[in-house]
Amino acid sequence: MATDNKLSMVVFSGDMDKVMAAFIIATGAAASGMDVTMFFTFWGLKAIQKDSSLTGKGLFGRMLGLMNRGGIDTIGPSRFNFGGMGRWMMKTMMRSKNVASLRELRDMAIEMGVKIMPCQMSMDVLEIGTDKMLPQATAPVGVAAFIEEASHSKATMFI
Amino acid sequence: MATDNKLSMVVFSGDMDKVMAAFIIATGAAASGMDVTMFFTFWGLKAIQKDSSLTGKGLFGRMLGLMNRGGIDTIGPSRFNFGGMGRWMMKTMMRSKNVASLRELRDMAIEMGVKIMPCQMSMDVLEIGTDKMLPQATAPVGVAAFIEEASHSKATMFI
Amino acid sequence: MATDNKLSMVVFSGDMDKVMAAFIIATGAAASGMDVTMFFTFWGLKAIQKDSSLTGKGLFGRMLGLMNRGGIDTIGPSRFNFGGMGRWMMKTMMRSKNVASLRELRDMAIEMGVKIMPCQMSMDVLEIGTDKMLPQATAPVGVAAFIEEASHSKATMFI
Repeated sequence: MATDNKLSMVVFSGDMDKVMAAFIIATGAAASGMDVTMFFTFWGLKAIQKDSSLTGKGLFGRMLGLMNRGGIDTIGPSRFNFGGMGRWMMKTMMRSKNVASLRELRDMAIEMGVKIMPCQMSMDVLEIGTDKMLPQATAPVGVAAFIEEASHSKATMFI
Repeated sequence: MATDNKLSMVVFSGDMDKVMAAFIIATGAAASGMDVTMFFTFWGLKAIQKDSSLTGKGLFGRMLGLMNRGGIDTIGPSRFNFGGMGRWMMKTMMRSKNVASLRELRDMAIEMGVKIMPCQMSMDVLEIGTDKMLPQATAPVGVAAFIEEASHSKATMFI
Repeated sequence: MATDNKLSMVVFSGDMDKVMAAFIIATGAAASGMDVTMFFTFWGLKAIQKDSSLTGKGLFGRMLGLMNRGGIDTIGPSRFNFGGMGRWMMKTMMRSKNVASLRELRDMAIEMGVKIMPCQMSMDVLEIGTDKMLPQATAPVGVAAFIEEASHSKATMFI
């Protein structure tokens, strides 16, 4: 098993700043000519859902879907959120510095060929249907598919 | 120094969802035939302690032990905890989807031969004695032992 | 592109315990003879700023600078902070166990030749000038510079 010129990431976090860091690293690596694979699991799944999709069928699934509703634009940072203030503040600061938004970064990553893998088990537990995922994502996969990618990669990160 | 077919992880977090992700990745990699080493440090140590073990001798050590008491079943998720509600909700959802519990995943990892290394320095600072650790864990080790594992690994993650 | 005997880290977190873990791993790897590169981004930048530096020019930049003021000694842990109590408690426990302080660990890392890279984009967004950075840091760099380091490394971590 040779090492490919590849970078693999587990995107576990649903915090805006961490997801943003993940996409900045992904687009940076893709721009340097690397293959990039992102495996979205747990809270990270929100970043690759279609907009405003309410998810969940059972009571708990619906509760989680409600707390997590909205697409990538409603994700808050890991610090200083203050009920949405932090998100708005960070967005405003980033825009004034000409940094791409989270949505733009994600779309750029997809255009650059970054592979987007949703975690099947997390989708089951959080009751998120395949129809709620971005069409550019691969079919949902198990952890073995990610391990396979990581074992050929030059670098692997858990974010 | 050749690369072995190995995966190394630092488990720093004590959040139920992150520890669960760590054990899912560990068992997935072990099932794919990889050697797996997990180095438990700081809050992650809770996941490999014996059940209901109160730890600490000095005032602060006892306070931390009290806040952190209970074994692997009392770990809460990184989001939506609401004083234990989140843990119960996640457990119920996972059970209804036939996902193994944190305890089952940990025991499965141990049975599959995943190497469990406790961090000596964290045990000293948090005042957790060697007798409080699972018997399947290795003797407590310093960071150099983990670095040695990581430097031979195909992938390394900090969780 | 051959692999060097190198360890690369993204230090994204500004939590005392995570930054401490990062420096402990860095000094441990350097002591084992590895080259170590740390790329400080987002909240992690605080750990390599000069002491008591108030940063930011616009309203938001100044607000963030105020919330984040002080140097490496004012960083709190990711858990049990209680308005500074947690930081004091952890410091006291670490001191009583003869564990080096965060500042000592950082200075040790620098003395051992660990490469300290500040993220240009984060400095722009958070309005932190180059003059606020430790003189031992490299000039601010983009993510491509970090990717280059990571792609030659034996292990890469996101902290």
